[in-house]
Amino acid sequence: MNLLVICRILGVALEVEAAFMAPALGIALFRGEWNAVAALSATMALLLLTGEILRRIKARRSEYYAREGFVTVGLTWLLLSAFGALPLYLSHAVPSYIDCFFETVSGFTTTGASVIPKVEELPMSLLYWRSFTNWLGGMGVLVFVLAVSPLADNSGETLHLLRAESPGVKVGKLVPRMRRSTTILYMIYIGLSVIMFFLLVVDMPAFDALTAVFATGGTGGFSVRNEGMAAYSSYCQTIMTIFMLLFSVNFTVYYLLLIGHFRSALRNEELWTFLGITAASITAICVNILPQYGSLRLAIHNASFTVASIVSTTGFSISDVDRFPWFSKTLLVVLMFIGACAGSTGGGVKVVRVVLAVKYVKRGVRRAIHPQEVRSIHMDGETVDDETVDSVAVFLLIYLMLFVGMLILLALEGLDFTTTFSGLAACLNNIGPALGKAGPTLNYNCFSPFGKVILSFAMLFGRVELYAMLLLFIPWAWKK
Amino acid sequence: MNLLVICRILGVALEVEAAFMAPALGIALFRGEWNAVAALSATMALLLLTGEILRRIKARRSEYYAREGFVTVGLTWLLLSAFGALPLYLSHAVPSYIDCFFETVSGFTTTGASVIPKVEELPMSLLYWRSFTNWLGGMGVLVFVLAVSPLADNSGETLHLLRAESPGVKVGKLVPRMRRSTTILYMIYIGLSVIMFFLLVVDMPAFDALTAVFATGGTGGFSVRNEGMAAYSSYCQTIMTIFMLLFSVNFTVYYLLLIGHFRSALRNEELWTFLGITAASITAICVNILPQYGSLRLAIHNASFTVASIVSTTGFSISDVDRFPWFSKTLLVVLMFIGACAGSTGGGVKVVRVVLAVKYVKRGVRRAIHPQEVRSIHMDGETVDDETVDSVAVFLLIYLMLFVGMLILLALEGLDFTTTFSGLAACLNNIGPALGKAGPTLNYNCFSPFGKVILSFAMLFGRVELYAMLLLFIPWAWKK
Repeated sequence: MNLLVICRILGVALEVEAAFMAPALGIALFRGEWNAVAALSATMALLLLTGEILRRIKARRSEYYAREGFVTVGLTWLLLSAFGALPLYLSHAVPSYIDCFFETVSGFTTTGASVIPKVEELPMSLLYWRSFTNWLGGMGVLVFVLAVSPLADNSGETLHLLRAESPGVKVGKLVPRMRRSTTILYMIYIGLSVIMFFLLVVDMPAFDALTAVFATGGTGGFSVRNEGMAAYSSYCQTIMTIFMLLFSVNFTVYYLLLIGHFRSALRNEELWTFLGITAASITAICVNILPQYGSLRLAIHNASFTVASIVSTTGFSISDVDRFPWFSKTLLVVLMFIGACAGSTGGGVKVVRVVLAVKYVKRGVRRAIHPQEVRSIHMDGETVDDETVDSVAVFLLIYLMLFVGMLILLALEGLDFTTTFSGLAACLNNIGPALGKAGPTLNYNCFSPFGKVILSFAMLFGRVELYAMLLLFIPWAWKK
Repeated sequence: MNLLVICRILGVALEVEAAFMAPALGIALFRGEWNAVAALSATMALLLLTGEILRRIKARRSEYYAREGFVTVGLTWLLLSAFGALPLYLSHAVPSYIDCFFETVSGFTTTGASVIPKVEELPMSLLYWRSFTNWLGGMGVLVFVLAVSPLADNSGETLHLLRAESPGVKVGKLVPRMRRSTTILYMIYIGLSVIMFFLLVVDMPAFDALTAVFATGGTGGFSVRNEGMAAYSSYCQTIMTIFMLLFSVNFTVYYLLLIGHFRSALRNEELWTFLGITAASITAICVNILPQYGSLRLAIHNASFTVASIVSTTGFSISDVDRFPWFSKTLLVVLMFIGACAGSTGGGVKVVRVVLAVKYVKRGVRRAIHPQEVRSIHMDGETVDDETVDSVAVFLLIYLMLFVGMLILLALEGLDFTTTFSGLAACLNNIGPALGKAGPTLNYNCFSPFGKVILSFAMLFGRVELYAMLLLFIPWAWKK
């Protein structure tokens, strides 16, 4: 493992984090939130200092392979969260560092699970920073760094970093010109965010609209109101429903639409499957909750918002989902695992993997019946090579094993099965609120510090799609 | 699909079932249980008649391939259960046919889930038949038929039938002389059962000992007492613990021990993993329930019995597991899925598949780091071919998808997540009692007829290891 070459990239990432904290500091100064001013400036100083030291470490060898890519990404997410938690902690806004770490990991990983009972009591600058981590984490921090700075010297380094951080089965059609393409993706991200802001600000205070955009864009789900999104008008909630779904779509689709390649944009099995799952789930839940709501309009509104919130892995809530009938709740837990499209800001295992897994299983059944038959798997009209299919199966099995392992550990907390299972599912899949004691009207304080650490790692594992975190825990991968 | 050739085998299986009902009829006559006499003789007559008709259907073509094997096995299990339910129904012992079907599927699949609130009210002859289905289902009905009768004309037919019915990754080392080897396996099964009977009858009424042997041997778990196995002495419970574990081991191990091949018997990764998982789980649960029981001896006794009951997928209970701490309950739910060793009478996905899945995942992680590396997977000192490894991954993914699909359907019942999830897990993995409303002191009457049908199919899917039932539901597999 070439650890020295990793240090330099970590250093740059920390310095970029300091820069991203600047607006929060500005707000704190403007509003005279002196505790936050002190905490934010201390953190920024620490970030710049540590970043500078790390950046000056000279690597003797420049070799940079897949594992270096994974470890860089894993350590970046850990360090950004560890440092990003400091403003909350140093300003005494949240007394326990583990709680601050949980909250910040939840922000960067776009989970949106919270341990703060009354967010409205936080200083506005820290609320801004908390929500901004959602937006930043949505697209990936290193992706941003790669887009704006000449961080990576060679294309190999860029490739391995992007591969390790990008969600989805493999970096898509935009790969060849990576630097340019990441910039384009970020522009689309910013563009959608700006449009959403203007649509929201019509009927919401500007600060609320801005933070709601951060939370929706990153499919994070942090809210600046105690009541969550129930605090806003039905119009705003509808805008959120639409944008949660828009941010769950592979951004490449938008790129292709922008450059006029309509046919190849729409020949996307993942997209249609995602829309199909969403429509079917909204219908099923709508029928299921109709008796509870009485009015069809209300039932459709609540079902659409909730399904969009879960499939996009945002985790906003406008109704106490925990009071939905069990059918709806069970369906929502299943949707948590499926998640959004690859190449979006959403989490979960991603629809593309589910599609490929179904095709893989179909082929397996055919093989069991006709052992001599050779068939390859197709997607979007192209053949998918066996390695990719295999990697999807491996991914899903690791996901399953990791979930089971963490479930057993988390069960030590002694909480009921529904809370433990749905809480872990909501964290691993980067949703946010779960069911039971971690339901939308409650928070994750039902877990002890031990449980919060496990859940923090679950969020990180989910966000980086396993490998980048996994490698930090398996020493044999570090060996030559 | 060569349906005509299947008919003949189904006919024989039905006639064999009639023969197996004879002892129950004897008991009914001896004890003057006239309702049962009428019901049993009517069922036997119907079985013989239907069997004879089916047996006389002449197939024009003799072709018999893998899919014919699967469909034969699937239909056999369905028909044996449908007819096997008749004595309970016709004698008015259980009023609803769906309940009778559920109970009999539960018997044959060695699940042991019950919908009869007070079993002690049943006539002894029907209790005998109910328990006997556990023993019969444990080894597989067609395996028995193949061992004793010249059913299959050619070795291809025998091979495909055995492959379709045998649990595990592939039929093991005993394959070459299949007819002889199935006979040997049945002798071992009978031998172990006889030994257990003599050990139990010392401290139990003979009828109770016999039915307990049926339930333990098949890892089924039906009991003839309302209190379950709590009705018997601590000595009997210990014998059961030991024999539940013995029946969870691949019978090939016993065969190899019998013929003196100690080294190859013990060079069995699955066996050691199974023992390791069992020992670790007993320890963890023992520590977890110790405060509840006060005495270490009692905690060890209860933890061993419960873990043996779950890993063997028997489902006996001597304590209300639903009152265990959540850590123990969650661990038990996970153990349900792992199950016993392949080639035993136990259910679940089988330890060998878990072992292979872990190796598959390890290789996948290595490949992600070193894409150029080629590695094969080894087990018991031999290389496992890629097709087998692939089939394990496919199996686990189908298992997962089936579970999720059925979970959503079952959630329509409106029962809480714990009951729905654990109930389905307990049925699919052929355990028996679950948690919550389907806990050990309760029964599956919390589910509606709709739920019971779904759970019945879950049991069948689990027992035949998916394919044999799956093929009945996918029309494209029937085509040429």
